[in-house]
Amino acid sequence: MPRDVRMRGFERRHDVDEVLRLLDARLAPLPAEEVPVDRAAGRVLARGVVSAVDVPGFDRSAMDGYALRGEETFGATTYAPRTFSLRGEARPGHPFDGAVGPGEAVRVMTGAPIPTGADAVCRAEVAREEDDGATVLILEPVSPRKNVGARGEDVRAGTALLDAGRRLRPQDAGLCASVGEGRPSVVRRPRVAVLVTGDELLPPGEAPSGARIVDSNSLVLAALARRDGAADVEVERLRDDRSLVRARLAAAAARADVVLVSGGSSVGTEDHAPTLVAELGELPVHGVAMRPSSPAGVGFVDGRPVFLVPGNPVSCLCAYEFFAGPAIRRLGGRPMDWPHRRVTLPARRKLVSQVGRVDYVRVRIVDGAVEPLAVAGASILSSTVRADGAVVIERDSEGIEEGGEVEVRLY
Amino acid sequence: MPRDVRMRGFERRHDVDEVLRLLDARLAPLPAEEVPVDRAAGRVLARGVVSAVDVPGFDRSAMDGYALRGEETFGATTYAPRTFSLRGEARPGHPFDGAVGPGEAVRVMTGAPIPTGADAVCRAEVAREEDDGATVLILEPVSPRKNVGARGEDVRAGTALLDAGRRLRPQDAGLCASVGEGRPSVVRRPRVAVLVTGDELLPPGEAPSGARIVDSNSLVLAALARRDGAADVEVERLRDDRSLVRARLAAAAARADVVLVSGGSSVGTEDHAPTLVAELGELPVHGVAMRPSSPAGVGFVDGRPVFLVPGNPVSCLCAYEFFAGPAIRRLGGRPMDWPHRRVTLPARRKLVSQVGRVDYVRVRIVDGAVEPLAVAGASILSSTVRADGAVVIERDSEGIEEGGEVEVRLY
Repeated sequence: MPRDVRMRGFERRHDVDEVLRLLDARLAPLPAEEVPVDRAAGRVLARGVVSAVDVPGFDRSAMDGYALRGEETFGATTYAPRTFSLRGEARPGHPFDGAVGPGEAVRVMTGAPIPTGADAVCRAEVAREEDDGATVLILEPVSPRKNVGARGEDVRAGTALLDAGRRLRPQDAGLCASVGEGRPSVVRRPRVAVLVTGDELLPPGEAPSGARIVDSNSLVLAALARRDGAADVEVERLRDDRSLVRARLAAAAARADVVLVSGGSSVGTEDHAPTLVAELGELPVHGVAMRPSSPAGVGFVDGRPVFLVPGNPVSCLCAYEFFAGPAIRRLGGRPMDWPHRRVTLPARRKLVSQVGRVDYVRVRIVDGAVEPLAVAGASILSSTVRADGAVVIERDSEGIEEGGEVEVRLY
Repeated sequence: MPRDVRMRGFERRHDVDEVLRLLDARLAPLPAEEVPVDRAAGRVLARGVVSAVDVPGFDRSAMDGYALRGEETFGATTYAPRTFSLRGEARPGHPFDGAVGPGEAVRVMTGAPIPTGADAVCRAEVAREEDDGATVLILEPVSPRKNVGARGEDVRAGTALLDAGRRLRPQDAGLCASVGEGRPSVVRRPRVAVLVTGDELLPPGEAPSGARIVDSNSLVLAALARRDGAADVEVERLRDDRSLVRARLAAAAARADVVLVSGGSSVGTEDHAPTLVAELGELPVHGVAMRPSSPAGVGFVDGRPVFLVPGNPVSCLCAYEFFAGPAIRRLGGRPMDWPHRRVTLPARRKLVSQVGRVDYVRVRIVDGAVEPLAVAGASILSSTVRADGAVVIERDSEGIEEGGEVEVRLY
């Protein structure tokens, strides 16, 4: 049999949308885990948070001043102050140990519990202590409830504060702490394994030399996975040795939640990854109607998604963004949508595309208009460095005319 | 002397812009450090990166196929193929050890070095091996340079790739690795110390009880500092004990790059932080014309910035965003500007403000319009949880009329 049958080509190219529907159907958020609330910011709630308590749990002073019975101050002026017997002091964390009776006041600081019997706080600026602190003169009337923060004014017991699925912002995590939710239940973050294959690859940190180039894909994939909420990312670089790749792929699928295999994703004799995924599990997608990244693949081993990412660095970035990124976000409970900030601007030049495939076009923004990068081969990593972002041109589009509006996903 | 002189008030309120000018003038990015390139994504370059090498360092095949002299294929067709003697194979990382002479070809895989003597690659799809791989028939002509990626096509030696001050995106870090920049020089990330003062505070994780509430500020401040690039954030909770706070403040300023002190920032008897900062260093700002957060302060101890952040949770968030955040970003080499995503939308209701102070208004976005939150006291942390973002109303504005455009900084 002649050697050239090895170039067997792809049976068919899958549509990008079809692949995303498959991921949507097959992947669900990982199980919940509890985390200490001071590590919860950025995490996605697996269970909503309902407050069991009032916050604050007591009426508190909103001012530095004097707690008393508001109605007793009515008519007070600078010239005709009302005099109160000063019974003591309340500070935050140090309540006044007693009750405020008629004609009595307690010095209070902002945040201190309002003593029993008092119902208002007169601001310190309109009061004056006398007799070495035995009495206080009140120079202005203060209505009942004035300068008092009521028990439960921030949160009432029983209130649903945060829904499941919410990604906790700093203040959301703070509110969990306030209500005593010490270990919120959050979606576990996916563990990601990155296998980079290729005899030509040197590890990042080494200098390229002779016929060997430096692996940049592992670094790009790891950084993107961390952006998307991966807990940890393990990287292994492997020779193009079928049995070695097989063993490491099986091991990776056994311990990680997502496996990314960079390189060897196409249909050549040294492209082991597709047949190995099919052997170890299933490979429902191999070959996608897109550019770059058409040799991308999506499979499952032990139920874990495995993404075949072409070795060309631009294809690698593109295949990650289209497929692996949404999957990692879904497993971690985040939205599958691209997380990029988007801007819509006019095209300075035509963006060419072909009906029947999705195009991922690196663009620059120059003077408020979008232009595709002139040099844009899939092997040119520097093109993604010169680019400000990417434009995705949908399958049924012939591209975007000069002057047309384009949405840029900013890097 | 009567006790009430303790309520001494602020000498004057500083303008927000004046405080930012002070920070801009006094703070500079921290010294550089080298990091392994596979940890460099997200870091800010202290020194630009210039490539010392061509990438790739050799002409490489862009296809699986046969490397040969292009002009020898001219006139080839399926019916009149050109026959070449097949001398061997080149794979990525495995160059062909020899030269390609007239009438000769070498089997090449994508990414393999082009052998000496060859100048083009004929795609495998239009070639056929015969004689057990001793010869290959070429069925289509291929011009010289076709399917060959030239040495330096991605990066040429001597090219300035990335400028100092750039925050490395995943692909930027990848490009550093590709050119052999193993330890880029990046701005050191600031160490942040958070001191939270208050006898009433319980640590996050505990349930509020009696007169005690749970500290949420440390958690919010730590999460915001991490968002802004802090290397690590150390939190200490301290009783309202002047000598204790003094000692811990001095120690924090000796080991951290930025100190945040939450609580006790105002002018009451238990507000130790301002006088302590003034004693240990200087306190050029205390009291700011803004709402909330007017008791905020900015000082320096041992040359390190110290931010006095009011204890009320909304004021805490606000003071961080206005002053501490820009400072942490500046020290880490990032832009001082707020990092929030912004949207401009019409106001559904009037946003009231007062000329002479900056207002920080928590808002919701409902049906594409902006509305201020009804309950919005500085002590109501839950208001920031219900909010989608904040609107900053400048000093000279009386607010925004119903229907006017407002810019929301999204949380």
